[in-house]
Amino acid sequence: MTYDAATPVRELWELFEARTWEAAGRRLADDFVCEWPQTGERFCGRDNFLAMNQAHPAPNWHIVVRRLIASGTQAAAEVIVTTDEAVDVCLGFYEVRDGQISHGVEYWTEHANQPTPSWRAEWTERMV
Amino acid sequence: MTYDAATPVRELWELFEARTWEAAGRRLADDFVCEWPQTGERFCGRDNFLAMNQAHPAPNWHIVVRRLIASGTQAAAEVIVTTDEAVDVCLGFYEVRDGQISHGVEYWTEHANQPTPSWRAEWTERMV
Repeated sequence: MTYDAATPVRELWELFEARTWEAAGRRLADDFVCEWPQTGERFCGRDNFLAMNQAHPAPNWHIVVRRLIASGTQAAAEVIVTTDEAVDVCLGFYEVRDGQISHGVEYWTEHANQPTPSWRAEWTERMV
Repeated sequence: MTYDAATPVRELWELFEARTWEAAGRRLADDFVCEWPQTGERFCGRDNFLAMNQAHPAPNWHIVVRRLIASGTQAAAEVIVTTDEAVDVCLGFYEVRDGQISHGVEYWTEHANQPTPSWRAEWTERMV
């Protein structure tokens, strides 16, 4: 059977969406580490990462995995997290070991629909 | 020969770094489209995308492709763009057709080293 790094990543996000935290945790290695380079934060251990996600203050969040690309032990995901206030996006790069996610690097941003900066306005158009 | 979507994506960024714009352009399809969901911008056509990149005002930028994951016609990249002022990051998801990149979705953010928000401070530590 071909090893598929996409599976635990997809399941992790889907089980977060279902708020089934124990099942989500089984997709993470005990010693899972997740890095958030934007803020310089590192979550060490499955339990810390799950506790943080359970405590997330965003109101009424819902998750859709939009893109998932996997090769060997690596996977990359574009995940849309819609809340009552915003459309957030997680860009995640993961390592999978023995069917569980052992390492993650996650970047968070949002759809802000800001105006186009003037320096590039002549080459761009608005998305529909 | 196995088709490798990683190659034109890696080369595009490396040729941007080398400021060899014409060679970089050969990695893009004529009708290449790139979407920037954060600002709702869309660059239509290779020429617009190249012109915008050539005009980018960031001072003294340098590019390193940190991660690149490809499968079939898709590739995802984590690209570090260091300037005199900041460490920017591009998270890009690409489609490749006939050896050229036909579509991109790029998110841009930066390493800000912000303080940890209080709601999650008990589960995280600082990256070294």
